[in-house]
Amino acid sequence: MPSFYRALARAEERAGHGLCVGLDPDPDRLPRPLRGLPAGEGLRRFLEGIIQSTLPSATAYKCQLASYLAFGLEGLSTLRSVTERLRSERPVILDLKAGDIPNTMSLYARGVFGAFGFDALTVNPFLGWESVEEIAKDPERGVFVVAHSSNPGSKDFQEAETSRGPLWHGLLERVREEADRENVGLVVGATDPSALALARRTVGGTVPILVPGVGAQGGDLETAVRLGRGAGPGTLLVNSSRGILFASEGEDFASAAGRVAEGLSRQLAGL
Amino acid sequence: MPSFYRALARAEERAGHGLCVGLDPDPDRLPRPLRGLPAGEGLRRFLEGIIQSTLPSATAYKCQLASYLAFGLEGLSTLRSVTERLRSERPVILDLKAGDIPNTMSLYARGVFGAFGFDALTVNPFLGWESVEEIAKDPERGVFVVAHSSNPGSKDFQEAETSRGPLWHGLLERVREEADRENVGLVVGATDPSALALARRTVGGTVPILVPGVGAQGGDLETAVRLGRGAGPGTLLVNSSRGILFASEGEDFASAAGRVAEGLSRQLAGL
Repeated sequence: MPSFYRALARAEERAGHGLCVGLDPDPDRLPRPLRGLPAGEGLRRFLEGIIQSTLPSATAYKCQLASYLAFGLEGLSTLRSVTERLRSERPVILDLKAGDIPNTMSLYARGVFGAFGFDALTVNPFLGWESVEEIAKDPERGVFVVAHSSNPGSKDFQEAETSRGPLWHGLLERVREEADRENVGLVVGATDPSALALARRTVGGTVPILVPGVGAQGGDLETAVRLGRGAGPGTLLVNSSRGILFASEGEDFASAAGRVAEGLSRQLAGL
Repeated sequence: MPSFYRALARAEERAGHGLCVGLDPDPDRLPRPLRGLPAGEGLRRFLEGIIQSTLPSATAYKCQLASYLAFGLEGLSTLRSVTERLRSERPVILDLKAGDIPNTMSLYARGVFGAFGFDALTVNPFLGWESVEEIAKDPERGVFVVAHSSNPGSKDFQEAETSRGPLWHGLLERVREEADRENVGLVVGATDPSALALARRTVGGTVPILVPGVGAQGGDLETAVRLGRGAGPGTLLVNSSRGILFASEGEDFASAAGRVAEGLSRQLAGL
């Protein structure tokens, strides 16, 4: 079976030039025509429309757990149907930023990769490297370790000055050592270009970097690609969520989302 | 409406002497008589038995999200029914160690406190204090910030030496400043007594500390109470999960769990 790195490379060879579509719905922002529908039904139709229109332009998809919890149980059954819909089409990442003791991480692996069928998971390293290792045991399942987030709060702990430089630099070195597993990647926000450049320089060309923060959060696409791109396809995933999902509130929500995704994918191709 | 601190104090005045029962089921460890049942049914009966037998001895309950994800969708619908069952009985904490950008934290608040009806949430501070603030806006809903975890990996980042001492010490100071909100607590593992003592000394007597790691993970109950107890009821929650849940694999799983919980509660009362 191919490693997660290889699966990502194949996905990019198929479509999207590294575009990751963030399927992060918001109960307050469903398109107008879907708002009157029974609980769950509006969400399902929304995501089905978005997936259908963005599939030709998407290398991968990312689902933010909080978005689905906000819809209650119906949200979580819809989350399950997203991985069913996309299985064998594109890798799907669950954005949970999981971080717990190893015993718990093995339950996360069972739930997220097993029962829910995700291909990858975002992980918060605050509970230590043993927790990352526990959930990275299967080379076919990807683990994106949050190294430097896209929000101003990244200064509080990630950038804390230690005797060996800013805290998150040590994390980069550790991820470089793990590149041979072919399933450990990074999350580095687009809002701080120097952080992204440093991350790529440190981990080498093969480690996939998932880059949120382009669009609504203010990160620049061209800069992200120039500084974050690795040695081949599947090494940079630029995530866009709100810019695609909420492109239109009207009947044309799906086609509008598809156009935005196509535009981003073309931009990525030309860069 | 009472603050979360006040709600915890009332809960301890009612029962349990600070015992938090960790409802963290494991698909491989359901009691034998429940293993042949349809998906979900065994889990529901298991938790109903555990809750009924432990209620007289429990101040609060904690549900580990990973445990429920591992059961698939049925697990999550059971998770929802746990908060319904315990509503107006005891505070229920979701152990998710959520940590994301503020926009996402507001969706977590909506899902975890709103749709799922939990009273409190564990939070991972790695994405910065702004993320904690965002989810701590409602004084009735508690937020337990992971300060020092119970696993060896706590050394990797939490204890990283910064110019202002170990990283997590700065976190304690920040939590002390937030005590007036009356809804921000800490998670500090029982496996390192000096960490627990320092946490209590730094944050003062009113901040609730949730202490995992007693029992299966090796932490000592008496030490945890001596070093972690605050100025009154509701300031120390000692969590036990596996020791209670897996007290017996047989027909008597519920009564066995109840006896262990009662024993722990008595121990806590005597300390």
